[in-house]
Amino acid sequence: MTMKEICQQAHDARIRVGMLTTGVKNDVLCRAAECILEDSDAILAANGLDVANGIDKAMPQGLIDRLRLTEVRLEQMADGLRQVASLDDPVGEILSMKKRPNGLYIGKKRVPIGVVGMIYEARPNVTSDAFGLCFKSGNCAILKGGSDAIHSNIAIVRAMQRALTEYQIPDGALSLIENTDRSATEEFMKMNDYVDLLIPRGGAGLIRNVVQNATIPVIQTGTGNCHVYVDESADFEMAIDIIHNAKTQRIGVCNACESIVVHRAIADEFLPKLYRRLSDSQVELRGDAAAVRALGGEGTPLVKAATPEDWGTEYLDYILSVKVVGSIDEAIEHINRYNTAHSEAIVTENYANAQRFLEEIDAACVYVNASTRFSDGNEFGLGAEIGISTQKLHARGPMGLEALTSTKYIIYGNGQIRP
Amino acid sequence: MTMKEICQQAHDARIRVGMLTTGVKNDVLCRAAECILEDSDAILAANGLDVANGIDKAMPQGLIDRLRLTEVRLEQMADGLRQVASLDDPVGEILSMKKRPNGLYIGKKRVPIGVVGMIYEARPNVTSDAFGLCFKSGNCAILKGGSDAIHSNIAIVRAMQRALTEYQIPDGALSLIENTDRSATEEFMKMNDYVDLLIPRGGAGLIRNVVQNATIPVIQTGTGNCHVYVDESADFEMAIDIIHNAKTQRIGVCNACESIVVHRAIADEFLPKLYRRLSDSQVELRGDAAAVRALGGEGTPLVKAATPEDWGTEYLDYILSVKVVGSIDEAIEHINRYNTAHSEAIVTENYANAQRFLEEIDAACVYVNASTRFSDGNEFGLGAEIGISTQKLHARGPMGLEALTSTKYIIYGNGQIRP
Repeated sequence: MTMKEICQQAHDARIRVGMLTTGVKNDVLCRAAECILEDSDAILAANGLDVANGIDKAMPQGLIDRLRLTEVRLEQMADGLRQVASLDDPVGEILSMKKRPNGLYIGKKRVPIGVVGMIYEARPNVTSDAFGLCFKSGNCAILKGGSDAIHSNIAIVRAMQRALTEYQIPDGALSLIENTDRSATEEFMKMNDYVDLLIPRGGAGLIRNVVQNATIPVIQTGTGNCHVYVDESADFEMAIDIIHNAKTQRIGVCNACESIVVHRAIADEFLPKLYRRLSDSQVELRGDAAAVRALGGEGTPLVKAATPEDWGTEYLDYILSVKVVGSIDEAIEHINRYNTAHSEAIVTENYANAQRFLEEIDAACVYVNASTRFSDGNEFGLGAEIGISTQKLHARGPMGLEALTSTKYIIYGNGQIRP
Repeated sequence: MTMKEICQQAHDARIRVGMLTTGVKNDVLCRAAECILEDSDAILAANGLDVANGIDKAMPQGLIDRLRLTEVRLEQMADGLRQVASLDDPVGEILSMKKRPNGLYIGKKRVPIGVVGMIYEARPNVTSDAFGLCFKSGNCAILKGGSDAIHSNIAIVRAMQRALTEYQIPDGALSLIENTDRSATEEFMKMNDYVDLLIPRGGAGLIRNVVQNATIPVIQTGTGNCHVYVDESADFEMAIDIIHNAKTQRIGVCNACESIVVHRAIADEFLPKLYRRLSDSQVELRGDAAAVRALGGEGTPLVKAATPEDWGTEYLDYILSVKVVGSIDEAIEHINRYNTAHSEAIVTENYANAQRFLEEIDAACVYVNASTRFSDGNEFGLGAEIGISTQKLHARGPMGLEALTSTKYIIYGNGQIRP
């Protein structure tokens, strides 16, 4: 099929898929989980091909790890689909209904978005996750995974499509774009006549390309240059625990802490204590002049002078930039200037400063006395997550099933005309 | 200032503008209303220049009418600002707050979007309306009006900026892009580093250009190919009143009816009655074969055979296309195929058909037994309207103040770290 045919098929299927009952959707999801396990030999063989190609191409070990499937990972993917089946169906909820003076009843109802496109990299588990969330929320999914995972994705999609066929769901409910050329991605992004939403998941380059070139409305997910601000009144032990957790609990994720901001009044006492804890994990600290001084000067192991680029860098590594500020105002200004509007935290015992930080920091998730690592659909109680939005339109922060819905106005009249 | 400087100035002002109290915002809006009236001589003189230029350029009369300002229209613009001042402030509302098992309190709070760009045509009243709604919802506004209204817009913005200055609001709260070159529009649309949302208001060409070229997230407003479906069980008188109202009450608007769909079982009886009512208003009917037959054949005045293009056409004129169908299924399929997802109505006495229409039609506003002309922020009780969204992301249907807000998660912890 051509790109246009794939997208049109999904567009044509959207009404029927959007009207499926919760029971049927759940049955299909559970059956899709079974189909993945039934096909595990074929999926693992296809994945073996992708992994071998990756090794031939000298793909970094971390990416190979994300690409590689095992029996256990297939079980997790199937569990993921069953878990989505267990979530409440967001479709059909009446969010409000009011009677107008002219007697019209005007209601706002939650409906599927229609056709959702996903562009992502070489993580085959996203293929089943994305389908599960899109299907449960009544949407048709068009998936464009990374070329390095193409054999795995074809095998996984084929398995899940068998479940759809058994339940006579239209083919347009799930499509995989098998053409891995860059030109196919470019063409896909411009299918705004058929696709209602495009979600890119992956590195900054992928997301920038989509934002620059898509004509389909996009939800940007992504990069997190997250800060922890240690206020004058902070409990040191709490601050150290939070920074250690936010930096080292998992290193390559968007909600990891990349920069700390410390009040000048406590810098000399706090930073050496933090250093002792972080140096156990070999975290390099790149500080401004005051921070480097407090950390024992430039000769100290794991201590370096920060360059201006450091303030805006998402390291995804055992590195932390350290800025010393004279006031909470300066801290807020610094964070609002350099952050990526993802997740920001203050550690403080001061009520007014806690409230000011919550109010004035411009980010999807703003924390008082907790680790930025909690920015996650499961941790927020959404049950699942299709990504973390760092833009302000439609959805902000962790996105669950509701983020994959729109609304429509339904109006009950008895002959009203406009005067 | 360069385009980048204008946008950066707004971006830098967003935090302060977003934190203004409701009282200050309301005072500024009322003062801006006064400033417009104080400057009425200057504004009317500037507008006179625009109107004279329009006449020189042989601008159509309808557009001249929209461009022309009078004392009365300035009063209406000032009233509009005062009315926005009287609306509830959407900013700061806590939409939900939950305690998680780990003791974190996770809340969702309504916040301004930040910087909102508007691209519109030669209607100077949009200048004050857009500023009022953006400012009340805590946003910085960057306005790019049509070149044909540039003198009027400069004078109006200057008046409103005086109010901002008197209250020491940062300049970035309201900017007008005075460069009327097409290249300035193109440059503006790509300022996604500084502008959070772009709303185009105007004809299909303007909106298509923005959708194709903007890197800023867009809310599409606009075109309405709205249908009224007359079901087998319809009350004829009600159906005729609704169609007459939806077609003729105001002709050039997006929620006007452009096409009717009639059940075959009643077409021969209903259409001649409808014809008698609509021919008083000189409405031309372009029907399929069955409709033309029911209307007395092709020789009949104001009756023509429809071409395939008619089904997808938004006439904005005294023309209506007429499709005869054999069932509600066929009606729903026809409408979902040709509509622009704006406003659609069924006239029926049948409960099941009413519910099916509400469920299965994919549009922003779906009506039972009422005119499509009600799709409007004021009629829906939103108090004001910045446009009618025909896309599914962020806002759908008439957009009031809430559509100009985003959310942020605020999280209260006491030292939680992620296990």
